Amino acid sequence: MQTAHISKLYRSSLGLLTDLYQLTMAYGYWKANMHEREAVFHLFYRKNPFEGNFAVSAGLALAVDYLKELAFSPADIVYLSTLKGSNGEALFDEDFLSYLENMSFSCDIDAIPEGTIVFPHQPLVRVKGPIIQAQLIETALLNMLNFSTLVATKAARIVQAAEGDSVLEFGLRRAQGVDGGLTASRSSYIGGCTGTSNVLAGQLFGIPVKGTHAHSWVMGFEEELDAFETYAKAMPHNCILLVDTYDTIEGVRNAIEVGLALKTRGYEMIGVRLDSGDLKNLSIAARRLLDEAGLTQALIVASNDLDEYKISALKRAGAPIDVWGVGTRLVTASDQAALGGVYKLAAIQDENGQWQYKIKQSEDAIKISNPGLLQVVRAIDQDGFPIGDCMIDEWLENSVHEMISLSNQEEIILTANNSKKLLVPIFRNGNLVYNLPTLDAIRAHSLSQQALFAMIDLPKYPQGLELSLYQIKQQLLNDINLRTNGMVSSPN
Amino acid sequence: MQTAHISKLYRSSLGLLTDLYQLTMAYGYWKANMHEREAVFHLFYRKNPFEGNFAVSAGLALAVDYLKELAFSPADIVYLSTLKGSNGEALFDEDFLSYLENMSFSCDIDAIPEGTIVFPHQPLVRVKGPIIQAQLIETALLNMLNFSTLVATKAARIVQAAEGDSVLEFGLRRAQGVDGGLTASRSSYIGGCTGTSNVLAGQLFGIPVKGTHAHSWVMGFEEELDAFETYAKAMPHNCILLVDTYDTIEGVRNAIEVGLALKTRGYEMIGVRLDSGDLKNLSIAARRLLDEAGLTQALIVASNDLDEYKISALKRAGAPIDVWGVGTRLVTASDQAALGGVYKLAAIQDENGQWQYKIKQSEDAIKISNPGLLQVVRAIDQDGFPIGDCMIDEWLENSVHEMISLSNQEEIILTANNSKKLLVPIFRNGNLVYNLPTLDAIRAHSLSQQALFAMIDLPKYPQGLELSLYQIKQQLLNDINLRTNGMVSSPN
Repeated sequence: MQTAHISKLYRSSLGLLTDLYQLTMAYGYWKANMHEREAVFHLFYRKNPFEGNFAVSAGLALAVDYLKELAFSPADIVYLSTLKGSNGEALFDEDFLSYLENMSFSCDIDAIPEGTIVFPHQPLVRVKGPIIQAQLIETALLNMLNFSTLVATKAARIVQAAEGDSVLEFGLRRAQGVDGGLTASRSSYIGGCTGTSNVLAGQLFGIPVKGTHAHSWVMGFEEELDAFETYAKAMPHNCILLVDTYDTIEGVRNAIEVGLALKTRGYEMIGVRLDSGDLKNLSIAARRLLDEAGLTQALIVASNDLDEYKISALKRAGAPIDVWGVGTRLVTASDQAALGGVYKLAAIQDENGQWQYKIKQSEDAIKISNPGLLQVVRAIDQDGFPIGDCMIDEWLENSVHEMISLSNQEEIILTANNSKKLLVPIFRNGNLVYNLPTLDAIRAHSLSQQALFAMIDLPKYPQGLELSLYQIKQQLLNDINLRTNGMVSSPN
Repeated sequence: MQTAHISKLYRSSLGLLTDLYQLTMAYGYWKANMHEREAVFHLFYRKNPFEGNFAVSAGLALAVDYLKELAFSPADIVYLSTLKGSNGEALFDEDFLSYLENMSFSCDIDAIPEGTIVFPHQPLVRVKGPIIQAQLIETALLNMLNFSTLVATKAARIVQAAEGDSVLEFGLRRAQGVDGGLTASRSSYIGGCTGTSNVLAGQLFGIPVKGTHAHSWVMGFEEELDAFETYAKAMPHNCILLVDTYDTIEGVRNAIEVGLALKTRGYEMIGVRLDSGDLKNLSIAARRLLDEAGLTQALIVASNDLDEYKISALKRAGAPIDVWGVGTRLVTASDQAALGGVYKLAAIQDENGQWQYKIKQSEDAIKISNPGLLQVVRAIDQDGFPIGDCMIDEWLENSVHEMISLSNQEEIILTANNSKKLLVPIFRNGNLVYNLPTLDAIRAHSLSQQALFAMIDLPKYPQGLELSLYQIKQQLLNDINLRTNGMVSSPN
């Protein structure tokens, strides 16, 4: 138990992949006989990551895989039976544990498909079902959606900075755990990367894998030229030579010697890689030397702590780099290592089965949640371009034409030719009703979404709450404020 | 394949948990018949994380579990056989793939036990064996050691800031993937946390799990008092009430009402939790109200984007907080999301089986690696306190007395009563020879190391290279510089 093999960690069920408080609340609902009451929860984030203007939704396939097999195994139940309360007694009743063991997942889940451009407050996932179930899955859903969306968004930003150049993800060694690495590879590909160094991600997800050799290869020989020649002899058909182990320019010269020899054998050297130093000047010098030698097709690959900012700066400076290898800053999203997505109650049935709207109040306006059974309607003009996103409550008769802006409370009228509901059915009564797209289809969707929104002035893109939903929300806020203020000023 | 169930990701072998370039280099060594030459690699980091003065080593148990079962499964081989080179031909020969499939792990591995206080340039792991194997395991070792050490160190810093208070890890929902969350829980416990919210980490690693209820519990009821009473009725023996869903002070009053009622039933309310607002003033007010009501034993738990800096500030301000719940900033180590550990070649056998020292040169002095078969000797004074760390080469006859400081190249003489070699044997000829300590033993070791080094002026703690090793390194640097300069100035 203390040193479970990492490859076995996951052979157990993932029923216990949750915070303990989800289970203690489940117990509370069960004891109060409220556990079968239906509730609606939304998973959303409040602020675009990286000071940016959008996010790329990702992680749904992981969540589906988790939900499809959601159950408490006998071993899970045994573990839960060992937990103790403050008085040393068992934390949970046996009857409750047997309820859990027999519980069968029955929620309705809607979600925004992976690869879609999304904005703050939009439900990436909507869960409607018995509160005991809807609550238990919160932590795992957040874990999966938060991180995948974060990295897909980071990748999209980096790919955009590379302006059509190929971006490769090289981050496994610095990723946050094995799954941190694998999930980062998958999300990076969704965001638009063209490949990964992570072979297991290639095997599991079908992502193209890339790689040639490290500095240690060169260090293993007396002379760099020897190292290059030996490599090219073994792999004439996968030849990118890392040229900066000693002196970069000399490295390029050695690579050229090998590249010319390869030509005589009927092969093309793919290129050279720069991994340190002044990437702008070194790439210019390398390009000149390669071109002078007639190796005009040879690519220049660059790596070394790159991110969207460094790539943009190098592009602006005219660095003739063709392929960008990005690692740590992509897979850990190091300038913002968490998305901060949340999962909030938006409605619950009362004891009579009547739905009650719910919001989370906060002094911080951005933290106030939205009530109802939310859907996001994306209005589209006659040319197919998005002209605004409106959040509606599917329980209301809605007109998308009138909405109140999320940013400045102004009224916005959208006159759309067409519209698209972003959330689609994933589970109905616990059964999967969604055809999971292939990873390549998700990536294509993401790239087409990115191309579409690249034409739009994102900071001004209208986003709002449909008018009648806005009015319900204001009423709820008034009620809470009245009650809270009343309570605070009461003498007891 | 596109949507492998996350719980199945890991049922495959982890043979392919590596960068492709490790496999292409393996192929190169194999083609050049160099693959069985022995090499020495060291895994180390170059700079203490978080602008701090130490790190807490962690992740070795994960690496051991990975290495114990290291192999390429038939499915791995099939996958590798599908990879193509630039000309469309198979990337790897069938003979090579069959070599891989039959390869049996035979390295010697030494490492610093988990929970040890370590410093830059010290090998956390040392690998000696056939270069093909030593190279293949690089990526997985870095992935496992880097992240675990990073989070254990962050946890230690937070635990130290809490000055003896209990620190709970609550980060699963914001962690970087499922394993990012699990590994973070394990590493946080090693660093000194007393528990986690992550139930799966509890089940798999035996870490104490903690949790009571969320805001959504309170929102599910018409009145907060109702919510508290219902919870306390269900879980009188696990009662920490979250008091800030509406008005925090009113929440404390409601909790007190419930706490007093619990007393009459023979239970103690464990405490209240604050999750927003001005934690200093709210905790002072809550403490006063609790004490006035006679609930002097009730703890105050605080959470909300805490880290070592915020905890220190609250402690200095006199906030009467007893338990600290720490999430995102701990499990993602958000102010430095990667340790940046590296794995460098330090020696390799030549074609005659003679060992050749190797270093990685760099213009940046901190990036120059150290050659040899390194060991770290920690010198200890008569009272048992460490007085300096000396890196030695186990191939040399060493005197630890004379070393050259890593920071300023000055000569240091250590007069120790005693000394301890930090690296211990883990694998010999591929066989595990190390008795993995329990996680609780690792945590105890970490806490005792932290207590020991808390008495030491860390920025001045002597760290150096043993004199004869230093001289070998200087000679290697001279050789490389001579050769590189010679090559650069040569006419061709």
